[in-house]
Amino acid sequence: MTSKVITMAHGGGGSRMLELLEEVVFPTLGEPVLDEAEDAAALYLPGVHVAYTTDSFVVKPIFFPGGDIGKLAVCGTVNDLAMRGARPLFLTLGLILEEGLTFEVLRKVLASVAHWSREAAVKVVAGDTKVVEKGAADSIYINTSGLGVIPEGREVSIRGAVPGDVLVVNGYIGDHEASVLSCREGFDFQVDVESDCAPLGGLVEAMQEAGAVHALRDPTRGGLAASLKEMAASSGVTVEVADGDIPVREGVRAFCEVLGLDPLLLANEGKLVAAAAESDAEMVLAAMRSHPLGENAAVIGRITVGRKGEVSVLTPLASHRLLRMPSGEHFPRIC
Amino acid sequence: MTSKVITMAHGGGGSRMLELLEEVVFPTLGEPVLDEAEDAAALYLPGVHVAYTTDSFVVKPIFFPGGDIGKLAVCGTVNDLAMRGARPLFLTLGLILEEGLTFEVLRKVLASVAHWSREAAVKVVAGDTKVVEKGAADSIYINTSGLGVIPEGREVSIRGAVPGDVLVVNGYIGDHEASVLSCREGFDFQVDVESDCAPLGGLVEAMQEAGAVHALRDPTRGGLAASLKEMAASSGVTVEVADGDIPVREGVRAFCEVLGLDPLLLANEGKLVAAAAESDAEMVLAAMRSHPLGENAAVIGRITVGRKGEVSVLTPLASHRLLRMPSGEHFPRIC
Repeated sequence: MTSKVITMAHGGGGSRMLELLEEVVFPTLGEPVLDEAEDAAALYLPGVHVAYTTDSFVVKPIFFPGGDIGKLAVCGTVNDLAMRGARPLFLTLGLILEEGLTFEVLRKVLASVAHWSREAAVKVVAGDTKVVEKGAADSIYINTSGLGVIPEGREVSIRGAVPGDVLVVNGYIGDHEASVLSCREGFDFQVDVESDCAPLGGLVEAMQEAGAVHALRDPTRGGLAASLKEMAASSGVTVEVADGDIPVREGVRAFCEVLGLDPLLLANEGKLVAAAAESDAEMVLAAMRSHPLGENAAVIGRITVGRKGEVSVLTPLASHRLLRMPSGEHFPRIC
Repeated sequence: MTSKVITMAHGGGGSRMLELLEEVVFPTLGEPVLDEAEDAAALYLPGVHVAYTTDSFVVKPIFFPGGDIGKLAVCGTVNDLAMRGARPLFLTLGLILEEGLTFEVLRKVLASVAHWSREAAVKVVAGDTKVVEKGAADSIYINTSGLGVIPEGREVSIRGAVPGDVLVVNGYIGDHEASVLSCREGFDFQVDVESDCAPLGGLVEAMQEAGAVHALRDPTRGGLAASLKEMAASSGVTVEVADGDIPVREGVRAFCEVLGLDPLLLANEGKLVAAAAESDAEMVLAAMRSHPLGENAAVIGRITVGRKGEVSVLTPLASHRLLRMPSGEHFPRIC
């Protein structure tokens, strides 16, 4: 059985496009508000303090162990909202499709969007589909924007870390990038690991109910290193972490050694680093560990008074190295 | 003087990306909230009934008479919000850049985004930048999502047209697509016309202050034909229009004749078609005509009780033809 394929006409705004929407997009996503085919969704927001974000996804390949571009597009945006302490509520979905993509692949990606939207308790309320010629995109690119409500009195920001805060991560670092690279063509060394891609809204809720969380960041592109540097710079503090306390799977560590990579630079898609108030840190950590996405949570360091923007890493040899902002020459199209 | 170009490292989430953001993106957009570099923008919305939409832009070429992909990305999304009767407030901006794009071109596009955001009174509050390899995109693709507030008691929807309503458009049809096609390589026949690309929020406000507007649509891809078919189908009514009343510039009409195109199928980016309450139609039309974006507004037909979803066009020969939904084999990448 051959699958139908995307043609330029499917992006033309006419009946062929409607056919694509009605045959594949609407039924697969299963969101009634999309069927209404309005120019914009009209929504009631339960609050006026909102978090609003956007992210595009160009990951290659589009299917990888533990996820796919659709799951990534939901989780990536949901997580950005959660990092502001918001409850994620709504997503928009912008598709750029390459001529020749099969309906079957598109359906699989959208089914993943639908599944993970339900898991993350968000609704896809608006969308857009564009088609470009063969060779003008690489199968499918997805943009999601997201909207969430920030509960009253909640104040979480990358600028919120203060000296004394305890730094925690919710589990193993580097799984996502190691997984994507391992299944990429031309990569000699593989590691048997799944992407950690997951929606973190529920975990963040649980953490905030347990205690004061001052700053949150999900270490995606640029890895934990970039997140720590950003927190140190934005909050005007020094970050101190101990290399030995940062959870990295054996396989991922070996993968990094063979390829000459630093695990702290690997992208994650279901991890967060939090600066929790010193007095609440144990309760926050306990809440994390009793959540499925935080079982392997660990304290990795603390915030100190020191040079603003500095990240100091205690090495296994008990010396200190200063972390530099990664320059970005790492592997492209990880998310 | 040669311009810097985008490299894969500019998409890596590290210092090179920061350099791109701080050197080009933030200063050109000039939105302080972006400099904060949070994962999501935290915003206060003046109301809880909101309109929310998304649109991706892949127009080719990216600069054309009367506009560019940046202007289009602002106006397209602002207009989708306005079509729900909302006051557009916030945009997100997702960039997919092809390796090798010059900083100069990017800066020009972003300056246009900044300019038209100010014109449309919206703020770009969140963004994302991805870079893909040369050949995996065509210079630059932009996604914008938009958020607006729907004033209390306002109810505008593509499903809102009722028999008796008067159909009005705010000016000449087809200018955008004729302009883009005319400057596309390989096109033999040119027309000296500028794209109508414009933000319609102010015009829609003025119309709604003047009288009851039941349904609104901006005829982009698929043209006026698709908008009328959608209104007829969604509202469960018949739409009757007179070909001779639909404003089309002489040059655009000639362009269509030479190329065998129907002006009703051409995409517009600064036009709307409205179903206004019969009793208020004159006032709505007057309000349109006294607005710079509605000087050439015209009544083109009305909503009647008839077969649901039917669009009947009175031809210059006084016969009727039924409009079919365009199938979408028109020209790709018009927006």
